[in-house]
Amino acid sequence: MRKQWTKGASSIKFEEPVYIQSTASIVGKKEGEGPLKDSFDMICEDPMFGVDTWEAAESSMQKEAASMAIGKAGLKPEDIRIIFAGDLLAQTIASSFGTAGLGIPFYGLYGACSTMGESLSLGAMAIAAGYGEHILCATSSHFGSAEKEFRFPLGYGNQRPFSATWTVTGSGACVLGAQPPASDSSDKVLPLRVGNGCAVITGVTTGKIVDYGLKDSLNMGGCMAPAACDTIYQNLKDFCRKPSDYDYIFTGDLGVVGQKILFDLMEEKNIDIQKQHQDCGLLIFDGETQDTHAGGSGCGCSATVLASHILPKVASGEWKRILFVPTGALLSKVSFNEGDSIPGIAHAVVIEHAEA
Amino acid sequence: MRKQWTKGASSIKFEEPVYIQSTASIVGKKEGEGPLKDSFDMICEDPMFGVDTWEAAESSMQKEAASMAIGKAGLKPEDIRIIFAGDLLAQTIASSFGTAGLGIPFYGLYGACSTMGESLSLGAMAIAAGYGEHILCATSSHFGSAEKEFRFPLGYGNQRPFSATWTVTGSGACVLGAQPPASDSSDKVLPLRVGNGCAVITGVTTGKIVDYGLKDSLNMGGCMAPAACDTIYQNLKDFCRKPSDYDYIFTGDLGVVGQKILFDLMEEKNIDIQKQHQDCGLLIFDGETQDTHAGGSGCGCSATVLASHILPKVASGEWKRILFVPTGALLSKVSFNEGDSIPGIAHAVVIEHAEA
Repeated sequence: MRKQWTKGASSIKFEEPVYIQSTASIVGKKEGEGPLKDSFDMICEDPMFGVDTWEAAESSMQKEAASMAIGKAGLKPEDIRIIFAGDLLAQTIASSFGTAGLGIPFYGLYGACSTMGESLSLGAMAIAAGYGEHILCATSSHFGSAEKEFRFPLGYGNQRPFSATWTVTGSGACVLGAQPPASDSSDKVLPLRVGNGCAVITGVTTGKIVDYGLKDSLNMGGCMAPAACDTIYQNLKDFCRKPSDYDYIFTGDLGVVGQKILFDLMEEKNIDIQKQHQDCGLLIFDGETQDTHAGGSGCGCSATVLASHILPKVASGEWKRILFVPTGALLSKVSFNEGDSIPGIAHAVVIEHAEA
Repeated sequence: MRKQWTKGASSIKFEEPVYIQSTASIVGKKEGEGPLKDSFDMICEDPMFGVDTWEAAESSMQKEAASMAIGKAGLKPEDIRIIFAGDLLAQTIASSFGTAGLGIPFYGLYGACSTMGESLSLGAMAIAAGYGEHILCATSSHFGSAEKEFRFPLGYGNQRPFSATWTVTGSGACVLGAQPPASDSSDKVLPLRVGNGCAVITGVTTGKIVDYGLKDSLNMGGCMAPAACDTIYQNLKDFCRKPSDYDYIFTGDLGVVGQKILFDLMEEKNIDIQKQHQDCGLLIFDGETQDTHAGGSGCGCSATVLASHILPKVASGEWKRILFVPTGALLSKVSFNEGDSIPGIAHAVVIEHAEA
């Protein structure tokens, strides 16, 4: 397969669609009390998930989500050719320990909260190229492990500015394949299929790192909005589309602050996405009653909203085509403490309704 | 491209070879005094690379190596369709800040010291599928930033057991493409080509996470050897090869301790790789005179040895086929301090001589 590449383009359009065969979403108690409470596969009341540390809890949750997605597709771990997974923790330990026991060939990713976009992109690219029959894409985040990794000890009880987001405790996983999901379902086998309706990935836009020099780790929406703008703009350009060609454009976790900046930045390019735009961080929590300030965040935010809320509506045909654009803030406590800026990145995945 | 997949296989054989169009290697002073001192593109005497922190130094080095590889291929940053890069630091900040300025679509990876194997694998998969004309694969490590990230403050001057390895200060980068490297070279344009001889990637084997339960972060060779064994064994099985079908099998940074364990584990499978095996960590330093104990380690170890020492010999035809198997120890200081084990992973890349 040898092609001509358009200069300056960052997107790939697949000749044959990549099917999302199944999804799984597991969240914590707080997420299970939010607006999407009836959509998740599992709500775990215990933030420790039955183990001793937050990191191990996140690993357990990610492994469980991966296993559940594999099961819902009617598959076994040995049917999965590659896992693409990552998380927010240093050296992505939630993934290393989360999927280790599954014994599946594994590529570890780091894209901060954009990771579900990265894993779905690479998974779809691999399926479209014929590198595997089934590929698993997964990611996770956990409020306790993320606060410990990036901010203050929980026991310190620090106040949070209104620009801060609340890291979602959750893990989302998808099984991708070249064939439509099976049409038979049972208690345990529950492919992503509504009648003959399916959700397929038809293209991806790879994000660039965009750094406007912001340094406030409690305003990550502001840090990520320029990257979201860059990727959405590039996607529309590469695919010759206008915003209304998408039912919705879902960013990951810009929150109320980042959303406003995104609208402003898009307006500078004479593009209005206000009718189409939704943000997973604004969907998963009720900011009025749940005290989550600017919204939800973390890899698990966009991943669980995609798996529980977005994909079923695409499969049913309620939405014909959406753009999924998780956004990542590329900071570490070391770079933050050394006074560095917080670069952003966003990876876009085009997901469409198809009839099997 | 729709295929049948062999159950239990973890490898991909490319129908058309993927050319390594150029390479670049930059190392620090100590590496520049070792056995490969005449092979590197650049030796930087200043461990700070002219900036203020170790992390920024590593970023500068990685960005310089990436720019150099792009230049040696006769290209500009805008000619590169995707970068696959990663490093050892928390949230892979050396890569986020290292390649940010290049403005190239970017997928961040984490595979510990196996990262060059992961980036070359994904880069080759993307080129072979026609997803880009040129793709850059890069990684880096830095002694100062790695010791700070994983072990003790340098000023503390702790003693190191003989099983410990010495993190290489270095960055390696390769530009991959579907076409042979150009045959004309100049001062700055210096493609990886010897006459008509080139180096091509013909296949990859994706590693699984293997965890034997070892917990000693000062014996990472021991932690990674089981993963190296698993991937090498799988590669030989998937490609129906015996060790002598490779001129050499290069692991990343097992060092003297890990090498011995690898030989023992392979022997249990009735496979003897002692004649073919070399370890990049044992090639880059002279353990007798450089006080590096078990050998070199870090993403930069295998990446710089590949770029400076291995690939030119494959391009010249001195070696016809080699297996490059960087090995990663998946630990963080958090998982280590919580008493977790250190899982290993190894990704294999088959590199062969070809005539353009």
